[in-house]
Amino acid sequence: MTDGHNTYFNSVDWAAMQADHPVGDAFLAFARKSRDEIRAHQERLFARLVARAWQTEFYRRHWGNAGIQPGDIKGLETLPQLPSFDKSDIMDSIARNPPLGDFGGFEAYGEGARPPVILHTTSGTTGTPQVLLFGAKSREVQNLLLGRLYRFQGLRPDDVVHSVYGHGMINGGHYVRESVTHWTSALFLSAGTGVETPSVRQVALMRDFGATVIVGFADYIKKLARVAAEQGIDPVRDLKIRMISGHLGREDKETLSEAWGGAACFDWYGVGDTGCIAGEGPDRDGLYVMEDAQYLEIGDIDTGKPVPEGAEGDMIVTCLYKDDIYPIIRFNTHDVTRLKPGASSIGVNFQRIEGFLGRSDNMVKIRGINIFPQAMGPILEEDPAFAGEFICKARRDETGRDEFIVAAEITNGADSSVADRLRALLKSRIGIDVGVEIASPGDLAGLTQTEVRQKPIRLIDERFK
Amino acid sequence: MTDGHNTYFNSVDWAAMQADHPVGDAFLAFARKSRDEIRAHQERLFARLVARAWQTEFYRRHWGNAGIQPGDIKGLETLPQLPSFDKSDIMDSIARNPPLGDFGGFEAYGEGARPPVILHTTSGTTGTPQVLLFGAKSREVQNLLLGRLYRFQGLRPDDVVHSVYGHGMINGGHYVRESVTHWTSALFLSAGTGVETPSVRQVALMRDFGATVIVGFADYIKKLARVAAEQGIDPVRDLKIRMISGHLGREDKETLSEAWGGAACFDWYGVGDTGCIAGEGPDRDGLYVMEDAQYLEIGDIDTGKPVPEGAEGDMIVTCLYKDDIYPIIRFNTHDVTRLKPGASSIGVNFQRIEGFLGRSDNMVKIRGINIFPQAMGPILEEDPAFAGEFICKARRDETGRDEFIVAAEITNGADSSVADRLRALLKSRIGIDVGVEIASPGDLAGLTQTEVRQKPIRLIDERFK
Repeated sequence: MTDGHNTYFNSVDWAAMQADHPVGDAFLAFARKSRDEIRAHQERLFARLVARAWQTEFYRRHWGNAGIQPGDIKGLETLPQLPSFDKSDIMDSIARNPPLGDFGGFEAYGEGARPPVILHTTSGTTGTPQVLLFGAKSREVQNLLLGRLYRFQGLRPDDVVHSVYGHGMINGGHYVRESVTHWTSALFLSAGTGVETPSVRQVALMRDFGATVIVGFADYIKKLARVAAEQGIDPVRDLKIRMISGHLGREDKETLSEAWGGAACFDWYGVGDTGCIAGEGPDRDGLYVMEDAQYLEIGDIDTGKPVPEGAEGDMIVTCLYKDDIYPIIRFNTHDVTRLKPGASSIGVNFQRIEGFLGRSDNMVKIRGINIFPQAMGPILEEDPAFAGEFICKARRDETGRDEFIVAAEITNGADSSVADRLRALLKSRIGIDVGVEIASPGDLAGLTQTEVRQKPIRLIDERFK
Repeated sequence: MTDGHNTYFNSVDWAAMQADHPVGDAFLAFARKSRDEIRAHQERLFARLVARAWQTEFYRRHWGNAGIQPGDIKGLETLPQLPSFDKSDIMDSIARNPPLGDFGGFEAYGEGARPPVILHTTSGTTGTPQVLLFGAKSREVQNLLLGRLYRFQGLRPDDVVHSVYGHGMINGGHYVRESVTHWTSALFLSAGTGVETPSVRQVALMRDFGATVIVGFADYIKKLARVAAEQGIDPVRDLKIRMISGHLGREDKETLSEAWGGAACFDWYGVGDTGCIAGEGPDRDGLYVMEDAQYLEIGDIDTGKPVPEGAEGDMIVTCLYKDDIYPIIRFNTHDVTRLKPGASSIGVNFQRIEGFLGRSDNMVKIRGINIFPQAMGPILEEDPAFAGEFICKARRDETGRDEFIVAAEITNGADSSVADRLRALLKSRIGIDVGVEIASPGDLAGLTQTEVRQKPIRLIDERFK
C-alpha cells in the first residue's frame, strides 16, 4: 500500500534514458554515426512517441480532424503529411479544458499511475505566458541535452557558471539550473534576472565566486559588462569569463566577446516546449540539431510545405524523446532558420542550422519585401557608431503606403552624417528605403524593455491600430 | 575516457538512499520502530558521517583545536563532547579560503572524482547571505525529507501546491520546488516572492490553476489573502486552499486558517544548511524530528551544555545523511526550542519539539529577563484589536536603564484603551513593564520589511549605537 504518490526518481529507467541520449564522450561517438544509424535510432523513438500520442485526447482530435488513422503513420517518412500545431492550438486546448488543457495526455496513464508532472510557463515573449508540461523522463532528457551541449561547447568540470535566466513560474532559469547541476560537474550560480539579483550584486557575485562562464540572453549579458565597468570592476581584468553560451546573433557574439575580453561565444536554439533543439559545437560553424532527440523540419512560412534544401522557413519540431507527458509531434515554433549545407569539419554527422533568423509571425511585409526586425541588429552593427540597441516601427500613411522605420541608439559624439549612413546601409541590405531615427544610449529602453524582459521587443507595428 | 564531468544521476545509489530514508508508507513504518532500532540506524549513519568529516580540512582543524583524535569518537554517546560550530565558523572558513571555504571538503575526493556540487545562499535573514553547499546525495535526501513531510501532513497526489519561497541565488525556492516535484505527484507552482511574481498575479495564478495548498512564510501568505480580497477574489469562496505548510507560530496558524477558510496549517523547522529538521504531522501536536536523518541536541544558550529534558535551549543539529559535501556535525542554529514530553498520539516514535521559539542571538536581556522578540506575536494575538504586525525596540536611557518597547499595528476603530490593555497583557506574560506604541495597519511595514523580506524584522536594538 502506498499513499498514492509516484516519484521522479522511481518513475524513469535512468540507464535506458542515457543509452538513448548519451552524454560526454558517448555523445560524440553517437553524433559521428552514419546517417543510416541515426535514422534507425530516430525511427525507433518515433514509433514509441506516436503510440503515446494516440493515447492522448489532443492528438486523437488534432489528427482525426485531418483524417489521419492510427495505421496511416508508417514512420518518419509519413511525418510531413501530419498536420503541425503551434502555440495557438495549445491555447485552444487550454480554453477547452482549463487550466491544463488536454495536450498533457494525463488520461494515457491509469488511475494513480501518472508520473510526476513539472509545470512552468514561458516568459511570454510573444504574448500571454503559455503553460509548459513535462513528465519526469522528458524533463530530464531536456536537462541532459543542454548539459551535454555545454560540455560539447567546452564547459569544464572546474568552471563556475553564472546564469541570468529568470525563475519564478518561468521555465528558463529552472531548466538551465537543472541542466548544469544534473549533467555537469561545474559550479552553478543561479543569479536570475536583474529583478531577482540586482545587476550590481550580480557583478560582485561573479567576482567573488570566480565565474568563468555566463549563460543567458545576450542583451542582459551586455548590460552586465557595462554595470561592471560602472562599479570599477574591469570585465576583462577583474573577471575571468572565458565562455558565453546563450541565444546570440552574429552581432551579439562580436559585441559580447569584445566586452568580455575575448570570451568564446556560443549560440543555441530551443523553445520552452521542446528544450534545446540545436546548438553550436566547438567549431562554432552552425548549430548542430540534437538529432538523437529532436527531429527538425523546415517548412514554408505560408504553406508549411518542406522548403528546398538551404531555403528559409519555419522550424517544425518533433521531440522524439517526449513519449511521456505532452508528446510533441510537428510543433511549429514560427522561428525561422535554414539548413546549413556541407559536412562538419569536426566529423559530427548531425544536421546543422544557421540559428534563429527571426520570427515568421513577427515578420513584416513592406512593399512586397519580407523583413525580420531582429535581422536589423547585425546590419546596424556594421557601423561603428551603432550603440547596440534598436527598435523597428511599421506605419501606414493615409494613402495606404507602408513605411518601415529603424530607431537606433548611437554612441555619444557620433558625427551628423550617421543617419544618412545607416539609411544607405539598410537600403543596400533590405532592398527598399527605410526611415532611420537616431537616439542616445539608453533612450530606447522604455520601448525595447531590455531592462525588464529577457528578450527585448524589436517591433512596434502601428499599421493596424 | 570521459570529458571529466560526473553527473548527479550517476553519482548516487538511489535505492540505498531510499532504504536509509524511506518515503510514503515505508516512512511511517520506520517512524514507528522502537527507540533502540532508531538508535542503531543513527549509529550506522553517524559512523559513516564521522569518517567523511575526518577527511575534511575543516573538521581536522575544528576538532584538532579541541584536542579530539580520530579514535576518540566512539559513537553518538561521544557527540556532546565534540565542539559545536555555527555560521561564524563557516564565515571564518570562507575568509581563510575564499570563495567557498574548506567546509565543503572537496579534497576528500580524488582528482576528477568530486560529485556535482549544488551551491546556493541563505536569504540573509540574520546578516550577510551565507554560502550553502550540497553534494548530489545530501541535496536529494533533503528534498526527500521535505517531500515526504508534506505527504505525512496530508499532501495528496491531486493537490496543486503554490510556493512563495524565493529563487535566484537563494536556496529556499529551489529546495522546495525540488522536494515537491521529485518526491510527490502534486503539481507545483513556483511563483516565488512578490518580486518574482507580483502578488496580484499570484492570486490570479492560484485561481486559474486551482491551487489547494500554499507553502512559504506566514507573513506573505497572510498578505496574499488581503491582496485576493482587494482584487475581488474571495480567499475562501473563490480559492480552494485546504492546507498551508510553512514556518508558523501559533498565532500565525490561527490567523492564516481564518483568512484561508479553515485551511489546515502545519509548521515545520529547518535552516538552509540542514534542510528540514522537524515538522508537524497529521496530529499537529509538536514537530517530529526527522530522526532517520537528523540528530538533534538542545544546548544551553550560554554554556552549550545539554539542558534538562523539556527546558529551552539552542538547537544543535547533526545531519546523519550528509556524508558527502559539507558534513554537518553539531551545527548550532541559535534557534531556540524545547523538547515536547510524552508519547505521540499517532504511534510515531520520533522525538518532538515545540517548534521555533526565537533566536538566541536575537534574545534581549532586559533587567534580568530574557525576551525573545518573536514571542511577542502570540501574546499580542490574544487581544482581538491586534492587526498582526509588530516590532520591538530595545533602548537605554541616560541613566543606563534598559527599556523594551513593543510597537503593534491595531485594527482601525479600536477603542482608546487598547494601549493600556496590551501593556497589562505583556506585563502579565513577560514579568516586567514594557512600553507599548500603537500604529495603524501597514504603518510598520517600513521597519519590519514584510513586503521585501521573507522573514520580517522583529527587533531594533538601539542600546549599543
